[in-house]
Amino acid sequence: MTGPVPSAADEREARAWAYLAAVAEPPCGPVRDLVAELGPVEAARAIRARSVPDGHTGVLEPTAARAGTDMTMAHLERAHGVGARLITPDDDEWPAWSLLPLGQATTAARAGEPVALWVRGPGRLDTAAAAAVAMVGARASTSYGDHVAGDLTGDLVTESWTVISGAAFGIDAAAHRSALAGRGETVAVLACGIDRDYPAAHSTLLTDIARTGLVITEYPPGTTAAKHRFLARNRLVAALSSAVVVVEAGRRSGALNTAAWARRLDRPLGAVPGPINSATSVGCHAMIADGDAVLIRDADDIVRLVHPDGGGVPAPRRQRSTDGLTDDQLQVVEALPSRGALGIDEIVFVSGRPVSVVRTALAVLDLKGLVEQDDQGWRLMR
Amino acid sequence: MTGPVPSAADEREARAWAYLAAVAEPPCGPVRDLVAELGPVEAARAIRARSVPDGHTGVLEPTAARAGTDMTMAHLERAHGVGARLITPDDDEWPAWSLLPLGQATTAARAGEPVALWVRGPGRLDTAAAAAVAMVGARASTSYGDHVAGDLTGDLVTESWTVISGAAFGIDAAAHRSALAGRGETVAVLACGIDRDYPAAHSTLLTDIARTGLVITEYPPGTTAAKHRFLARNRLVAALSSAVVVVEAGRRSGALNTAAWARRLDRPLGAVPGPINSATSVGCHAMIADGDAVLIRDADDIVRLVHPDGGGVPAPRRQRSTDGLTDDQLQVVEALPSRGALGIDEIVFVSGRPVSVVRTALAVLDLKGLVEQDDQGWRLMR
Repeated sequence: MTGPVPSAADEREARAWAYLAAVAEPPCGPVRDLVAELGPVEAARAIRARSVPDGHTGVLEPTAARAGTDMTMAHLERAHGVGARLITPDDDEWPAWSLLPLGQATTAARAGEPVALWVRGPGRLDTAAAAAVAMVGARASTSYGDHVAGDLTGDLVTESWTVISGAAFGIDAAAHRSALAGRGETVAVLACGIDRDYPAAHSTLLTDIARTGLVITEYPPGTTAAKHRFLARNRLVAALSSAVVVVEAGRRSGALNTAAWARRLDRPLGAVPGPINSATSVGCHAMIADGDAVLIRDADDIVRLVHPDGGGVPAPRRQRSTDGLTDDQLQVVEALPSRGALGIDEIVFVSGRPVSVVRTALAVLDLKGLVEQDDQGWRLMR
Repeated sequence: MTGPVPSAADEREARAWAYLAAVAEPPCGPVRDLVAELGPVEAARAIRARSVPDGHTGVLEPTAARAGTDMTMAHLERAHGVGARLITPDDDEWPAWSLLPLGQATTAARAGEPVALWVRGPGRLDTAAAAAVAMVGARASTSYGDHVAGDLTGDLVTESWTVISGAAFGIDAAAHRSALAGRGETVAVLACGIDRDYPAAHSTLLTDIARTGLVITEYPPGTTAAKHRFLARNRLVAALSSAVVVVEAGRRSGALNTAAWARRLDRPLGAVPGPINSATSVGCHAMIADGDAVLIRDADDIVRLVHPDGGGVPAPRRQRSTDGLTDDQLQVVEALPSRGALGIDEIVFVSGRPVSVVRTALAVLDLKGLVEQDDQGWRLMR
């Protein structure tokens, strides 16, 4: 990941990434680790040849079934057919997964980071994820839940927050639709290939989302939705968001899995209460009663989840004056967590930029008032 | 309060108590303190004569307006006319106000303890209060709130809990009615005289409550309901209960005042959530979100408020085998807090029994397995 930024036109690298994105069932930390060490072309070659460096033999088992079957060109063509692209850690819009808890910004954390993402839509994933809230909930939602999901989303997108969800029936759809109606940005994370509309009844909704926002997935084109993929997908919903809000959830709702990911990834978690005799509020009430989730009454409560210190609704990060930055500088900004500081070594690790580039970038960013240094390291200016 | 228990037939004492109960606007700690020192007959005489012992001059100002106007016989007759009686700290059924936080079981705490209580109904106030939950809420309740108040109350009275409320429209009435329907015990605490039905539309409800449970008030017969009396009444609702549950409450609901009393008196506080777009749930959601109240989903949650250590629904205290105890022994049992221990001196103070009587009673209670001693003092057996 060091060295010059690969261009999208670099066909060899693009094919290598597409191969790597498909060669193991996500999430697969060993593939990410191997790419981090060898770069995509060498990593793909090593996996294909079943010959990997010492310390990376863990990559062999999860790739055994698919290593020899190269669907790369088919995947790229099918993606192209639906207007999708593959974005990778080498792309500027790769999101700041550094938002993962600092203590986990190690090899182990890569297990949660996707190898690459298939993306439809005009949005930039990094800016979309910079100020994003996940709004999830029951598929069998009530009209109360749909109404509340719509209201909360409407207020959030008015404040320039991106609303991320899973395009499912019920709360997910209510959130996406409200974001679209409010001309806000919304991101749908799929548990299937980018060329599949799941659920099929949401084909139009997904097309509408892809027209202004983003539809994303870590699964190669053609992949069908499956139970374990919903669970893996939920981790991306949480990881891309600065807070997760569950609007309605029954006792065993899938939304509770997204909530569990929020806790694991240290994302603030909120839940909307409802009537205590409503089965679709049981999960929300349990999370609030157990102290796992904060009670959410309105969009302000959600904003406070992200910014507990208050001071009203802060300007979301995407509205910061980072537009004129070079790729290197942007990468350094994105390497910094929303809270807390990083040392130079950590910024080098997270950003994947050489130490000299990082030092120069920090100096410029400091002058621009975008970062500051204290005895704990470098942090984003509030 | 030391010496033999005065009998209800002691007309002189009864008249003194009725005088004392009316001579100052409740709550009036100085009157309680004076009675504690002089006994009712001497305390009444001293107030009437405007001549009180050193250290008790604080009683003069709050009694100045009424000391010379003796309504005692009128009050006793009006109470008799509606089948009400006056119970006092000298009566066996005087509740265990010792449940007030231990640190406050001092003169200052008497400010919160009523001088005496006018009571209608066949219940014994001490046993009613021994396992009681206050169920309060908005007068302008929704059908959801009424339904929930009824359900929760129905479940609580099935488990032999007393449900205490204020006989107001809305949640209060729904709770009382459900308790009556479930043949459970319910207590209505009024902010007016025992001979007044407030609200007038609840005349039949109050009669029904008085038929099986209790209607109580610290206000003398003839007293009209007034804003400040509702606030003082709310303190008794909380003080008589082992937990307070707010079912619905708007932003400025009177139920929030009862909740404030619960916090002040160290009673566990619960609140029932509802739709976030319901104005009558705003107060409940605020208390839950602020961590002031526990989210209540069902009667089990309420029982856990009282007994956080769980183990299912415990036998309420009234079902303990205290029926065969002497008055002295019962008084000592009731002097002990539901949690924590008291030393002999404190038990003497709270029970108002001589130290020799307390020692004898404790020895018997110990043998019966009702109390136990450890290095912190005497405590109720769990």
